[in-house]
Amino acid sequence: MATVRLIGDDEAEGLVAEVFADIRKTRKTDFINNFWRALAADPPLLKRTWEEVRDVMTAPGAIDPLTREMIYIAVSVANSCSYCVHSHTAAARAKGMTDAQYGELLSIVSLAGKTNHLVTALQVPVDAAFDASRGG
Amino acid sequence: MATVRLIGDDEAEGLVAEVFADIRKTRKTDFINNFWRALAADPPLLKRTWEEVRDVMTAPGAIDPLTREMIYIAVSVANSCSYCVHSHTAAARAKGMTDAQYGELLSIVSLAGKTNHLVTALQVPVDAAFDASRGG
Amino acid sequence: MATVRLIGDDEAEGLVAEVFADIRKTRKTDFINNFWRALAADPPLLKRTWEEVRDVMTAPGAIDPLTREMIYIAVSVANSCSYCVHSHTAAARAKGMTDAQYGELLSIVSLAGKTNHLVTALQVPVDAAFDASRGG
Amino acid sequence: MATVRLIGDDEAEGLVAEVFADIRKTRKTDFINNFWRALAADPPLLKRTWEEVRDVMTAPGAIDPLTREMIYIAVSVANSCSYCVHSHTAAARAKGMTDAQYGELLSIVSLAGKTNHLVTALQVPVDAAFDASRGG
Amino acid sequence: MATVRLIGDDEAEGLVAEVFADIRKTRKTDFINNFWRALAADPPLLKRTWEEVRDVMTAPGAIDPLTREMIYIAVSVANSCSYCVHSHTAAARAKGMTDAQYGELLSIVSLAGKTNHLVTALQVPVDAAFDASRGG
Amino acid sequence: MATVRLIGDDEAEGLVAEVFADIRKTRKTDFINNFWRALAADPPLLKRTWEEVRDVMTAPGAIDPLTREMIYIAVSVANSCSYCVHSHTAAARAKGMTDAQYGELLSIVSLAGKTNHLVTALQVPVDAAFDASRGG
Repeated sequence: MATVRLIGDDEAEGLVAEVFADIRKTRKTDFINNFWRALAADPPLLKRTWEEVRDVMTAPGAIDPLTREMIYIAVSVANSCSYCVHSHTAAARAKGMTDAQYGELLSIVSLAGKTNHLVTALQVPVDAAFDASRGG
Repeated sequence: MATVRLIGDDEAEGLVAEVFADIRKTRKTDFINNFWRALAADPPLLKRTWEEVRDVMTAPGAIDPLTREMIYIAVSVANSCSYCVHSHTAAARAKGMTDAQYGELLSIVSLAGKTNHLVTALQVPVDAAFDASRGG
Repeated sequence: MATVRLIGDDEAEGLVAEVFADIRKTRKTDFINNFWRALAADPPLLKRTWEEVRDVMTAPGAIDPLTREMIYIAVSVANSCSYCVHSHTAAARAKGMTDAQYGELLSIVSLAGKTNHLVTALQVPVDAAFDASRGG
Repeated sequence: MATVRLIGDDEAEGLVAEVFADIRKTRKTDFINNFWRALAADPPLLKRTWEEVRDVMTAPGAIDPLTREMIYIAVSVANSCSYCVHSHTAAARAKGMTDAQYGELLSIVSLAGKTNHLVTALQVPVDAAFDASRGG
Repeated sequence: MATVRLIGDDEAEGLVAEVFADIRKTRKTDFINNFWRALAADPPLLKRTWEEVRDVMTAPGAIDPLTREMIYIAVSVANSCSYCVHSHTAAARAKGMTDAQYGELLSIVSLAGKTNHLVTALQVPVDAAFDASRGG
Repeated sequence: MATVRLIGDDEAEGLVAEVFADIRKTRKTDFINNFWRALAADPPLLKRTWEEVRDVMTAPGAIDPLTREMIYIAVSVANSCSYCVHSHTAAARAKGMTDAQYGELLSIVSLAGKTNHLVTALQVPVDAAFDASRGG
């Protein structure tokens, strides 16, 4: 089920076909997952979103690609985005996430969930030492 | 403001004093942030929580300590935990997070927030290719 | 799956039958979606909830009915309520939401998701100019 | 700071004055907290909301008043509603919540936060045994 | 679907077999729900998590076992954890939750959801009277 | 407090100065709110984010500018983003939101919060009638 039709390869034309081709080229695979097939309902939004995902997740940078996926999983878990958890866990594995790394990721994410709830329940005031807004 | 009194050093005794001492020893600093001073309202909970944080965040493992902090920040942002964002951003900086790494972290976390909302709005069905529950 | 039994038309009696009749009359359709069939497990709660939904969503007012549905979708997406996203997207379409409007709704909701995460990560202090609590 | 002006006793008239009087009578105190003073910006919404809170939280029922407040705190923590955590923790204390009960509440809420994150990260399929939608 | 394989009884050995045995003994049932079968992908995490759940949810204390489950449900609903809602609603029923109690739980949780949204929309400032951080 | 320094006009140069100038020109005001001053810590992220906000929120389209702000508020409330609620409520007022519209917005957002919690608690199965993924 989805709120829009998923666009198959035989229906992809114009902007949609271009984006699908760029996804395949960038990821070196023929597989295009359902997120892009749903987003294709609005071609300009598909194009902008894909380009942002491609640039943020695959361009050279200061955080390695696997760590980027683990951060993405962390946000998606906290936001209860089922599809996103599935797709980025699969992506992290494809980028080499080991069972040991995945186990530690689960430990960190769930511990953060726990302490986030404790802090919010206790309404802990922020320490002045954490203020970076004036620092020089 | 908090829902409990924050415990000062002069009031810390028994379990609380022990935990405060271990925090100082483990972190090699005299500073004890307000989370622990609030949690001290329930000494056994303080002890269990500190030991879990210490073990998950500082024990040797497959994910380096700075990455662990960045994952913690990611969860805390998605859960809107203001105190947690402050404390773990300060911790990440103390562990060497550069401006470039922080900028990329912001880009990944906010992009995940964006696509989490898109996926949930579109109610994208999970691709069969992502299923790991049966794999061998 | 659900945590309660869904009440079929043949089982609806008393308060439940009255509410089902009012839903059909108000919406001018024979279709009663599962939310009401589940809520029927607690007839007084069903009645109070239906009356609030009916009044807030269909009474004459300063915000037109389609915009009301789009606001409802926005909240439901941010709360990760899968059923709610489906039901209110269907309702918005039934009230005339065009593809162009839906595409813009997706753009706004996902942009808000993105900047919400950025603001929370940066812990931006509220500008004094936004304070309306004292204004005259 | 707030997005509306808080209504003082000297400005309360009509519906607002009636609701303020009922709050004082029901709660047996002269104190009216800021939530009601903010909500007074929309008198009919104030009245409907107060009556629902009064009925759900104070009418005789199958769950005792202190437990109702603890459930309210649990939801408010998970929703990161700072004001709500403060006001309902104060209410729970006024209704007799002991330090031991509060400590256990913190343990349960934070454990639930932790396992919620684990379950979402693992995308655990719901056991057929939990299905109550068909039961007789 | 899940992000890991679910461990069947025939595959459980070592730590996993020990935990499964303790779950069966503690709960006095042969049934082991999928959460534990998924978590078994990381045996030490399984063990730590089970022991925490067992201690927090079943040890003698100041909050009775059924109330603990209702608090757990409240958090799980607010966090949109579908599996958790199912499993803890089933657990609450097994511990004697009546239809009347469940109806009131629904009323409280949904009212809290409503007022949490109102408070956050209005950005109500916390009353000084709620401050417990300095109290004596 | 913030996790970065807020950039004042006297420090703005290069990309940051260009974006600040475009904000002033687009919004026809000298006022630059703290979000942009914080985001200026990462100039390319500032530029990309501003351009997206400008395009999505001010370009001609099928949803009028005030409705866009109300949708933004709805998402920000559900995500508990305090700053975002303040800034977009101020923006909605600047675009002409009346007290009546604001009151209805509050009613819709809080009702959605309530029914989102009810639906998630009941785990209502999605009606087949809502499926748009196959439609023609």
